[in-house]
Amino acid sequence: MRVLVTGGAGFIGSHLIDRLIERGDEVHVADNLSSGRIEFIADNIESGAVIHHNIDLCDLSATIDCMKGIDFVFHLAANADIRLGIAITDTDLKHGTIATYNVLEAMRLCGVKRIAFSSSSVVYGEGAPMPTPENYGPTIPISLYGAAKLAAEGLIGSWVGTFGLQAWVFRFANIIGERGTHGVIFDFIHKLIADPSRLEVLGNGLQEKSYMEVKECVDSILHVIEVTNEPFNLCNLGSDDTISVRRIAEIVVAETGCTDASIEYTGGDRGWAGDIPRAMLAIDRLRGLGCVPTYNSEDAVRHTVRALIEEIGMEE
Amino acid sequence: MRVLVTGGAGFIGSHLIDRLIERGDEVHVADNLSSGRIEFIADNIESGAVIHHNIDLCDLSATIDCMKGIDFVFHLAANADIRLGIAITDTDLKHGTIATYNVLEAMRLCGVKRIAFSSSSVVYGEGAPMPTPENYGPTIPISLYGAAKLAAEGLIGSWVGTFGLQAWVFRFANIIGERGTHGVIFDFIHKLIADPSRLEVLGNGLQEKSYMEVKECVDSILHVIEVTNEPFNLCNLGSDDTISVRRIAEIVVAETGCTDASIEYTGGDRGWAGDIPRAMLAIDRLRGLGCVPTYNSEDAVRHTVRALIEEIGMEE
Repeated sequence: MRVLVTGGAGFIGSHLIDRLIERGDEVHVADNLSSGRIEFIADNIESGAVIHHNIDLCDLSATIDCMKGIDFVFHLAANADIRLGIAITDTDLKHGTIATYNVLEAMRLCGVKRIAFSSSSVVYGEGAPMPTPENYGPTIPISLYGAAKLAAEGLIGSWVGTFGLQAWVFRFANIIGERGTHGVIFDFIHKLIADPSRLEVLGNGLQEKSYMEVKECVDSILHVIEVTNEPFNLCNLGSDDTISVRRIAEIVVAETGCTDASIEYTGGDRGWAGDIPRAMLAIDRLRGLGCVPTYNSEDAVRHTVRALIEEIGMEE
Repeated sequence: MRVLVTGGAGFIGSHLIDRLIERGDEVHVADNLSSGRIEFIADNIESGAVIHHNIDLCDLSATIDCMKGIDFVFHLAANADIRLGIAITDTDLKHGTIATYNVLEAMRLCGVKRIAFSSSSVVYGEGAPMPTPENYGPTIPISLYGAAKLAAEGLIGSWVGTFGLQAWVFRFANIIGERGTHGVIFDFIHKLIADPSRLEVLGNGLQEKSYMEVKECVDSILHVIEVTNEPFNLCNLGSDDTISVRRIAEIVVAETGCTDASIEYTGGDRGWAGDIPRAMLAIDRLRGLGCVPTYNSEDAVRHTVRALIEEIGMEE
């Protein structure tokens, strides 16, 4: 099968590609390397297993060019920095909503019929019951990133309903693991490298979310696509528990050996405007389809901290 | 209060303006007259009650210009032709999603804090229970028009959560009445003017939806804004029953006096790809806030048919 992975040089995309190559797919990657990293896929490009198109999905005609002959699209490309929406308000509109429109329009024009999309738990907004099931409504995101994810879901639904596309939409918890390029663990390690004596934590540290290990995320995506076949398939992806930011900070401090670091909280119930303090997805549907995550949130965090310390390269 | 009504020269917008003038507001209208009609507001412009800005909301800087000094925004502008999305797939993206982004961004930059938005029952997608309550999920629209409405809801939610906006989002049933410029009744009358001997109906005519009279819609909007005060307020607007397209066709044939017209169905369960065959909103929330529509769907249809026959001017 010839697949296109948008954002394929990114954190999750590059793990997905490893699996797709294993199963024998011909893998095309569309990635402008804005947050993706060429080194994540360099070996696979070298070996000929991956063909990289360095294009911007905001460019419809370039998107069409790399859509030709594709059988299945994994659309993972997005602005990875949720907080950026506060400062530059059209980032998510362009690289989330409009990019998704371009992917769908290119699929329509090229006759490509199947897509999987990485949506997010943030579409549920604030105040949803925990754990949050797929049928919770209304979905009122409070971040611009979340608004773009919801917009993309709607666009995909409309292409299914109007043009006969088949789609799998996954609402992700926090996905973490090797090759992480952003997020709270990545930030904490970089802060401790810059100053091992203190760790500043945004908010009061009581924010509490659920974390899923990236390889389990990728395996779940492929499994769910394998065993479901509705025109529009929606599934939460996460683990069965939560962990607080306070606990993550403690783990990072311990694992980095910066045990003298003072952990300092900026205060307030959330890290930034648009942050959702507490989030946990119901994963009954995922379980029902035969996927049981083996890492809980704390194990996933600890595993990730160790992997990122090695990748980032802390001085011991 | 100085209000801005986007799409204020349109069908619903012009009725809203009548009420806003009655209550003493200073009314600004942003309308590029793509589907709005200057004659709907000409008298009010003449009298100085309305200031019309002939701008395209896809132009952010023009949108900012007419946002200055505004206290409250009624954002009604949209592509009015749901079917158009099939042929020109970026219509709703531009005039729905991006226009809404521009309105919100202009509000942020100009310090305008309150908005009411006309969303639609089509965000609920197909297969929702009837009547559909506001908390139904997941919302998977099947038309590009619906995707743009959902995207706009998400954008508004994100501006509430991130920038402290206050919002009222109304999910409209089919709104009909005087000054209608599109929709099934408008189309049927025009078809019978062109050929009084036959009336072609898209689909099998068993599509069944709920209809609300436009003045009741507008009054409900103003009432709900008056009596609710959450950061984000969501409310369905509709009537308590449905009417089939078949019945609407019969009423139009009878009221136009084209009683010899043969009603011909193109077949299939829906009018076009992306059409939702059956829709009815739960209006418990609306009732609970003290609004009770007096017209049922059939009364609203009959009233509208008579009004439009007079406006369009059929030869007797």
